[in-house]
Amino acid sequence: MEKKGNLLTVREDVRVLDATIRDGGLVNNFQFTDEFVRKLYETNIAAGVDYMEFGYKADRDIFDESKFGKWKFAKDEDIWAIIGEKDPRMKLSVMADVGRCNFRRDIRPRSESPVDMIRIATYINTMPGAIEMIEYAKEMGYEATCNIMAVSKLQEGDMRQGLEMLAHSNVDAVYIVDSYGSLYPEQIARLTAFYQEILSPAEKSLGIHTHNNQQMAFANTIESLSLGCSYLDATYCGMGRGAGNCAMELLIGFLKNPKYNLNPVLKFIEKYMLELKKNGVVWGYDIPYMLTGQLNHHPSAAIDCIAAGKTAYLEFYQDLLEGEL
Amino acid sequence: MEKKGNLLTVREDVRVLDATIRDGGLVNNFQFTDEFVRKLYETNIAAGVDYMEFGYKADRDIFDESKFGKWKFAKDEDIWAIIGEKDPRMKLSVMADVGRCNFRRDIRPRSESPVDMIRIATYINTMPGAIEMIEYAKEMGYEATCNIMAVSKLQEGDMRQGLEMLAHSNVDAVYIVDSYGSLYPEQIARLTAFYQEILSPAEKSLGIHTHNNQQMAFANTIESLSLGCSYLDATYCGMGRGAGNCAMELLIGFLKNPKYNLNPVLKFIEKYMLELKKNGVVWGYDIPYMLTGQLNHHPSAAIDCIAAGKTAYLEFYQDLLEGEL
Repeated sequence: MEKKGNLLTVREDVRVLDATIRDGGLVNNFQFTDEFVRKLYETNIAAGVDYMEFGYKADRDIFDESKFGKWKFAKDEDIWAIIGEKDPRMKLSVMADVGRCNFRRDIRPRSESPVDMIRIATYINTMPGAIEMIEYAKEMGYEATCNIMAVSKLQEGDMRQGLEMLAHSNVDAVYIVDSYGSLYPEQIARLTAFYQEILSPAEKSLGIHTHNNQQMAFANTIESLSLGCSYLDATYCGMGRGAGNCAMELLIGFLKNPKYNLNPVLKFIEKYMLELKKNGVVWGYDIPYMLTGQLNHHPSAAIDCIAAGKTAYLEFYQDLLEGEL
Repeated sequence: MEKKGNLLTVREDVRVLDATIRDGGLVNNFQFTDEFVRKLYETNIAAGVDYMEFGYKADRDIFDESKFGKWKFAKDEDIWAIIGEKDPRMKLSVMADVGRCNFRRDIRPRSESPVDMIRIATYINTMPGAIEMIEYAKEMGYEATCNIMAVSKLQEGDMRQGLEMLAHSNVDAVYIVDSYGSLYPEQIARLTAFYQEILSPAEKSLGIHTHNNQQMAFANTIESLSLGCSYLDATYCGMGRGAGNCAMELLIGFLKNPKYNLNPVLKFIEKYMLELKKNGVVWGYDIPYMLTGQLNHHPSAAIDCIAAGKTAYLEFYQDLLEGEL
């Protein structure tokens, strides 16, 4: 496959998206302090990050608001309270899951909102629902992306149908999502080519969201980038469900565009991320996550194993193979 | 570049080498219990590992034997005491540094030794010394490899000269060594091609030894593998200096040859590697290592930073940039 640029190229199409509050929120139930979120926002602007994701637009009729931090619901007024007013240097996004969001009620016109981009997360079988949300978001004036989850489990024919629907929609970008952290760079390269084949003629951009079960989150991100992917998800210290995500500090340290600046990233990590860890919030590469990644399984069994403090890795592996978990 | 095989190919040329005692020994001053080493030996055989490295052949006239565990000196009699007798299923290696080994005194004929392979580690400027050791090891009946350290700092012209000397020697394999954990897969691919161009006509094999400063140890290992590299270094839980190495459990879980077996690897980790960690032995990815990796520096400043418990990452980074460390 053709590389797009080389290791020293400044690629103007690149968009770094900080998903710390959203994917990291899955680790601590979205219980971030306002100070944390505000400092993260300031840090992202100083670091040249292109988008900051403020959380999910979860439906409060489905999820009990008293049981989660506010960023599971990412209301416009809560975002305004953090940012004060819009800063033109960075755009904001929220994620909305198909079937778990009352988007017609909770997503108001962009002109009234601090949010610039709605990221619609879907499994392949709910693609018609995703298209409906994409078109609604576009009508409301937003940028819209689609994150097709768990592609490592998809048949190629189903993936093609889904991507063709997206090619015919008004979506701006489509993400490759390695939900289970099971993919190797060779497979990421193949998927990038496959997505491009269908989406590039329709002038859709590509994005990538990775997990670190096999210590491949950063490697897979830059593999896809090198082949033309533009939207790159990262989180501070890789904070995210299970094994976590591509680390922001690795990505910002790698990108060659001088707009990106590692200094504020380091400053934020030493003060705020270390504090989170000290307070017992746990994520990152560990053997049970590696095993679910290698087997292309959802990480839930590994999350339970680690939460229970179990270190009987061989038994855990055999249980996974038995399909008992 | 042409891939050699695909993700499902069994590559008969692959040789997995466990360097836990040797590179891991740099973390705990080679203070492994005999039980640990014996169980590791049994585990490697059960896991299908091809070579186990028992440590360094350091010169006891240079290093005080009372200050290190015995595997810094990896004497034949100490290895015999662990293994009893030779097991034909796995070969053994030791590493010898040019200029820090009295090889004519300490490396006896292979027929009297449990060791099968001598790995000669050299910087480019001591290549004549390395060649001398290679030829000595070959005369003594051993397999011999050459690990050219710190290639990320080399000029291409110097690298070419060194590789041409090796092409004309009796060496069996030459390792690409990413000493500083600074290289990305694209660069590893370039180096693999460069090494092959000079070494393949002389029928020398290629090896790879990586560090995890940028969470690239495993990714770089399989990148080089996919292009034809055969000798793959790994350590249990990635144990090794600073950010550590390619993790054995990731590599064994990835390789498709059914001779490799993950079960004993997991069993060893849950009992012995977790115990090491519990006893306070520390290695693995951390921000200071990432920074020396990104800057292509030796990790020594990062090792000092972490040993001192310092978490002022921004200051550390600025000091590195100033060249004060």
